[in-house]
Amino acid sequence: MNQDYIKPDNWSIIEEGFHAERVESSESLFSIGNGAMGQRANFEEQYSGKTFQGSYIAGVYYPDKTRVGWWKNGYPEYFAKVLNAPNWIGINVAINGEQLDLNKCKTVQDFRRELNMKEGWLSRTFKTTLQNGIEVEVNAKRFLSLNQDEMGVINYQVTPLNSDAEIVFQPYIDSGITNEDTNWDDKFWDTTQVSHDNNQAFIQAKTMKTDFYTCTFMESKVFINGKSVLIEPNVSADATLVSYSYKQNVKQGETYAIHKFGGYTVDRNHDKNALVTAAKSVLATATQLGFDTLLEQQKQAWANIWDMADITISGDVKAQQGIRFNIFHLNQTYLGKDSRLNIGPKGFTGEKYGGSTYWDTEAYCIPFYMATKDQKVARSLLEYRYNHLQKAIENAEKLGFTNGAALYPMVTMNGEECHNEWEITFEEIHRNGAIAFAIYNYHRFTNDYSYIPEKGLEVLIGIARFWHQRATFSTNKNKYVILGVTGPNEYENNVNNNWYTNYIAKWCIDYAIENISKVEAEYDTDFTRIMNKVKLSKAEIAQWKSVADAMYFPYSEEHNVYLQQDGFLDKELIKVDALDASQRPINQYWSWDRILRSPYIKQADTLQGFYFFEDHFSTEELERHFDFYEPYTVHESSLSPCVHSIQAAKIDRMEQAYTFYLRTSRLDLDDYNKEVHEGLHITSMAGTWMSIVEGFGGMRVKDNTLSFSPKIPKEWDGYSFKINFRNQIIKVNVNQGKTNFELEGGESLDILVNDKKVTIEANSLVTV
Amino acid sequence: MNQDYIKPDNWSIIEEGFHAERVESSESLFSIGNGAMGQRANFEEQYSGKTFQGSYIAGVYYPDKTRVGWWKNGYPEYFAKVLNAPNWIGINVAINGEQLDLNKCKTVQDFRRELNMKEGWLSRTFKTTLQNGIEVEVNAKRFLSLNQDEMGVINYQVTPLNSDAEIVFQPYIDSGITNEDTNWDDKFWDTTQVSHDNNQAFIQAKTMKTDFYTCTFMESKVFINGKSVLIEPNVSADATLVSYSYKQNVKQGETYAIHKFGGYTVDRNHDKNALVTAAKSVLATATQLGFDTLLEQQKQAWANIWDMADITISGDVKAQQGIRFNIFHLNQTYLGKDSRLNIGPKGFTGEKYGGSTYWDTEAYCIPFYMATKDQKVARSLLEYRYNHLQKAIENAEKLGFTNGAALYPMVTMNGEECHNEWEITFEEIHRNGAIAFAIYNYHRFTNDYSYIPEKGLEVLIGIARFWHQRATFSTNKNKYVILGVTGPNEYENNVNNNWYTNYIAKWCIDYAIENISKVEAEYDTDFTRIMNKVKLSKAEIAQWKSVADAMYFPYSEEHNVYLQQDGFLDKELIKVDALDASQRPINQYWSWDRILRSPYIKQADTLQGFYFFEDHFSTEELERHFDFYEPYTVHESSLSPCVHSIQAAKIDRMEQAYTFYLRTSRLDLDDYNKEVHEGLHITSMAGTWMSIVEGFGGMRVKDNTLSFSPKIPKEWDGYSFKINFRNQIIKVNVNQGKTNFELEGGESLDILVNDKKVTIEANSLVTV
Repeated sequence: MNQDYIKPDNWSIIEEGFHAERVESSESLFSIGNGAMGQRANFEEQYSGKTFQGSYIAGVYYPDKTRVGWWKNGYPEYFAKVLNAPNWIGINVAINGEQLDLNKCKTVQDFRRELNMKEGWLSRTFKTTLQNGIEVEVNAKRFLSLNQDEMGVINYQVTPLNSDAEIVFQPYIDSGITNEDTNWDDKFWDTTQVSHDNNQAFIQAKTMKTDFYTCTFMESKVFINGKSVLIEPNVSADATLVSYSYKQNVKQGETYAIHKFGGYTVDRNHDKNALVTAAKSVLATATQLGFDTLLEQQKQAWANIWDMADITISGDVKAQQGIRFNIFHLNQTYLGKDSRLNIGPKGFTGEKYGGSTYWDTEAYCIPFYMATKDQKVARSLLEYRYNHLQKAIENAEKLGFTNGAALYPMVTMNGEECHNEWEITFEEIHRNGAIAFAIYNYHRFTNDYSYIPEKGLEVLIGIARFWHQRATFSTNKNKYVILGVTGPNEYENNVNNNWYTNYIAKWCIDYAIENISKVEAEYDTDFTRIMNKVKLSKAEIAQWKSVADAMYFPYSEEHNVYLQQDGFLDKELIKVDALDASQRPINQYWSWDRILRSPYIKQADTLQGFYFFEDHFSTEELERHFDFYEPYTVHESSLSPCVHSIQAAKIDRMEQAYTFYLRTSRLDLDDYNKEVHEGLHITSMAGTWMSIVEGFGGMRVKDNTLSFSPKIPKEWDGYSFKINFRNQIIKVNVNQGKTNFELEGGESLDILVNDKKVTIEANSLVTV
Repeated sequence: MNQDYIKPDNWSIIEEGFHAERVESSESLFSIGNGAMGQRANFEEQYSGKTFQGSYIAGVYYPDKTRVGWWKNGYPEYFAKVLNAPNWIGINVAINGEQLDLNKCKTVQDFRRELNMKEGWLSRTFKTTLQNGIEVEVNAKRFLSLNQDEMGVINYQVTPLNSDAEIVFQPYIDSGITNEDTNWDDKFWDTTQVSHDNNQAFIQAKTMKTDFYTCTFMESKVFINGKSVLIEPNVSADATLVSYSYKQNVKQGETYAIHKFGGYTVDRNHDKNALVTAAKSVLATATQLGFDTLLEQQKQAWANIWDMADITISGDVKAQQGIRFNIFHLNQTYLGKDSRLNIGPKGFTGEKYGGSTYWDTEAYCIPFYMATKDQKVARSLLEYRYNHLQKAIENAEKLGFTNGAALYPMVTMNGEECHNEWEITFEEIHRNGAIAFAIYNYHRFTNDYSYIPEKGLEVLIGIARFWHQRATFSTNKNKYVILGVTGPNEYENNVNNNWYTNYIAKWCIDYAIENISKVEAEYDTDFTRIMNKVKLSKAEIAQWKSVADAMYFPYSEEHNVYLQQDGFLDKELIKVDALDASQRPINQYWSWDRILRSPYIKQADTLQGFYFFEDHFSTEELERHFDFYEPYTVHESSLSPCVHSIQAAKIDRMEQAYTFYLRTSRLDLDDYNKEVHEGLHITSMAGTWMSIVEGFGGMRVKDNTLSFSPKIPKEWDGYSFKINFRNQIIKVNVNQGKTNFELEGGESLDILVNDKKVTIEANSLVTV
């Protein structure tokens, strides 16, 4: 944890001073993305120090051969991983023949990085003295365009400060890159063609095995003191690299600049044989508009995003910076434009975990996208799973299930499982529940039922079939039990009757049956189509029901709580605050068996169920379970503190709620888990948003009505957020003592505030 | 399973006919060894077909980098594996310029292999027609000398049948070999010197990382029709290979033979700088004696082993062949001469599993060696663990244990853990119990208590400390529980209160306390020395005792049996015989989660406890537990059927006992588990021995008295075995209706037969 590294600022992430040991962490924190691609904040010029190079294209992955000590039947053959794509940002800078390299310069002064979240750009400035004695000032700014999302642009400026100098900019593109994370040192890219002409260059390369065709491209222009100069560059090319050299004698105090336009065209969007043509078209537009106009467009595009997505917090800069950092990175990662994409846990900021889609999407991200984007975006995320239903059925078949039972993968790129730890892959099956719950949540929030007869019901049926088969009857308990699972708390493996899993399994079956009836009654054509496809009989439904109705839930009479799993009470129940601080986080100090037999909870588990199914339990029950489980929760998952923050707010533990809020919102900025160099925790950022909107704001949908019960931490003067509720935009502004609700749009809206009806008129404000 | 592959024979393993698809399986089955080295039955001449080359030196291993998908704290850095050593058996054979290669010959006829277990040699004969039309007869015989255990010898004879032929024997030694099983394709051997002189050659090579220095050597002599001929050979050498070429024009019908003497000298036995000198000394002895004399010595050495170790079975050739195959391979693997060595699960027959020492040694092998060898051998096996005690303490420390608690590794070469599956490495802790039990068993059988004050007590204290710390108090159960373990049944992982583990844990503590008292009372000097070393207080012992006294044992009132683990009764209790045969073995067809939540038992678990602690339970209790657990046992571990055979015999289920006996004794010969090509199941072979001696023979030691309760399968006319009981040799000969007990030696012995005292006079026979 490092609280002094990033300067507090309302709108920007700022680092001052050059610290070689922080380069990899800063490369993560200052990452940029535009939903279609993204990159770590690597330097444009050469850097021989420790760095983690990463540039990623959405939807382009590599099926690395699985690495495992002992193979188990049912493991996937491969582990799909985010793939470092060819480099297009590189600009070698030679000054009087010496390469600029911050790891080799005599001095580095006034180093400053800024990630301007309001406007969507990254800058870096510094002064440095090279070994040859030349002192230069460097100003670099770049962004990935939201409007032209195949393209990014760099403005890289060098000013010699103490003498004239010969400066060479050598922009290049390079497909001879390596991956940080490779199991077998395989080659990932096959470069098929390298070409260049007239200040432009193109490298066509395809991924091995997956055959994703890409074209990496660039074009450059150079300037003296802002005025375009024409230089005949030298060009050189080999099998995987093209570079141009722009040499210029620059007078002391003059600024020599290069504008580099670059990016990727990919066969997801273009014919694989037309990628160069598409790239030329992107470059034509970009160079015609030029850096400054593109930057203005970028500011406007981000202004549009912030207009809807921003959360303001007054009186607490660190809290403000935290939430904006979260919202910014979520929007850099996924904008909902392409239903083939999803939200990877590290977004475009690192390679850990591989895959792109976890249950995080359904459990944490959908509420954020549902409330801050057009509702099509959330529907698109649901459709992603519908499109993978057949693969989920095949996945279940590998594990011995039949009859169309569907088990969605723990981690996936294309619907196939690509994770291989038996205790996760085969046993962390609650993920299926979150996928069903997201359908329910979408309907609850949007009131768009059409998704269910069109697509969702088939998913619900596949999931219900899975739970029906996965539960087994215990004659001993005279109930259905679910044995051998890992719940959301991954610090328990292969346990019996994880309460969360059993509860959501029963709910999935009940919800599927309810919707089958509704679709049968109201959507005759869809019903017939679906039943012909899935061959579902009344008898089978009756079997499902018998499982749901007799599901076992472990309960402690003594503690008056549901038990996280059958064996929980046999553990040594020593609370977290009694643990030696030197042993935290326990996952860095304890062996796995010790963690497993401890009572320590990695992330909300029973409380996650209370979050999803809030209406099923009284506040008093929640409070009892919170009091029982919170003391054993170590929050070593990024997905944990947000849920505890929401629950703490609900039961008026505002101090705790605020502490959890800071932990979730500044997890990466303050590096709580000492791992930010590996990349950011993108999906949990949506949980941060929930902890304000649902936690402090108390936003719910109750009986088809938007509802709030605003609370505010004592540390804050006020906070505000906006919600797109069924195409009406409500701005909520909470201050100490009063809350304003403001409606943008032409129709009035009834909402509930602390369970009392309040009517907001069109385009007006109500204060409560 | 292949029941027709190996010809039934009382003393030999015989294969007739050449089947390329069986080469790898036969290489396993016909393996030879002498305790110090061993090798698969690879061909001497070139073979371009599918083969698994393996020659192994006892105690020489390589610490291969661990391969794992997700690292867990506490995993060892490396996985020690048996290492394919330089090849010394190779003899290229060129006939009129064409290499003899059974994969390329026109025809192969009269192919016959024999592993003569009585005399300890391997032969191979065949006739073949080469592509050049020459027909030859080949007779090859080889053995690894028991008397000179650094050396083996080959007599390789070629007779041209249809014309004269120019035959070149090119014996070679080669350190440029590869390993079947390598995680990262690392190089394992570093060849340091290659030398040759006067028909001798030497390759000095050391293992990478572990620095085991070896010298591989050879010397050859050639003969025509049995008469030595002197040929000036050509010699060639490169960085990793030396070969001599002995060219001879051989007349039709004449036999050209080469005697090749070869083997290894290693720095476990010699100074690493004197390995060539040692090799020359071995060769001098060997060549002076010559092949025929060495073979006579070999027959005599095996006769001596068989005299003590043989079990005869009359009336059932397959049963006879099976038990001798087991006894033969056990003696090929380990003879008890070197306390630094142990008994690897595949011996010298393959590379699977790595490591050399599992709990198999203590649980299965010690009874065999104790009863068929001098009791020093069993003591030596105990000392092996004593010598690793400090490493076991360090291993426990890695997992968070303190104060001298010892956890012996699951798999080891040098005392360090070298296995890395958390559910095994960290959780299959019952292995500690078997190590303590072996001390008890040794004392019970030999009455040699001296081992305990000298060495064993320290081991018992380290183990008791482990169990004391590993058990935790459950306020819920008001008992001590042991959470998160894998019992002997590895088809359940991370279960709570595995009965076997809890039972042996309690027993270990009780037994340690009992022996502390005894040593304190009777071995004052040892007691003081040990207590000074381990710093054990009365208070600590009292804490141990409180754990042992309040240990929890899961029990079902309904079924009146101890439960294998807390959750066993919640499983779907469908018996094995209701399983579809196409799903067997389940470990080849089912995903791991499905196996884990099934009731199917890989190997005896609760029944293993009933085997160890037979006296603690009535026969009626055993019967009840046998009836409860046997129907769920799939015996997919080689270590399972022997225990069930013993238990079945005890409760007079002779049909079952016989079936289990065949399964254990012919496991590899009939390839029940379809994996014999990977190597043989050596350690379970000791279980086969137990199933006759302890199962059918009913041998026990009761109150310091040797006891028998002989039974006989109806398929047999009779069987006999010998026992070395406290330096008296008892031969037991069981026939339908009567049993003879014969005593070799000078003093009479009281034994129990069916619980009645019988006195056998010196050198005489009693019939009961």
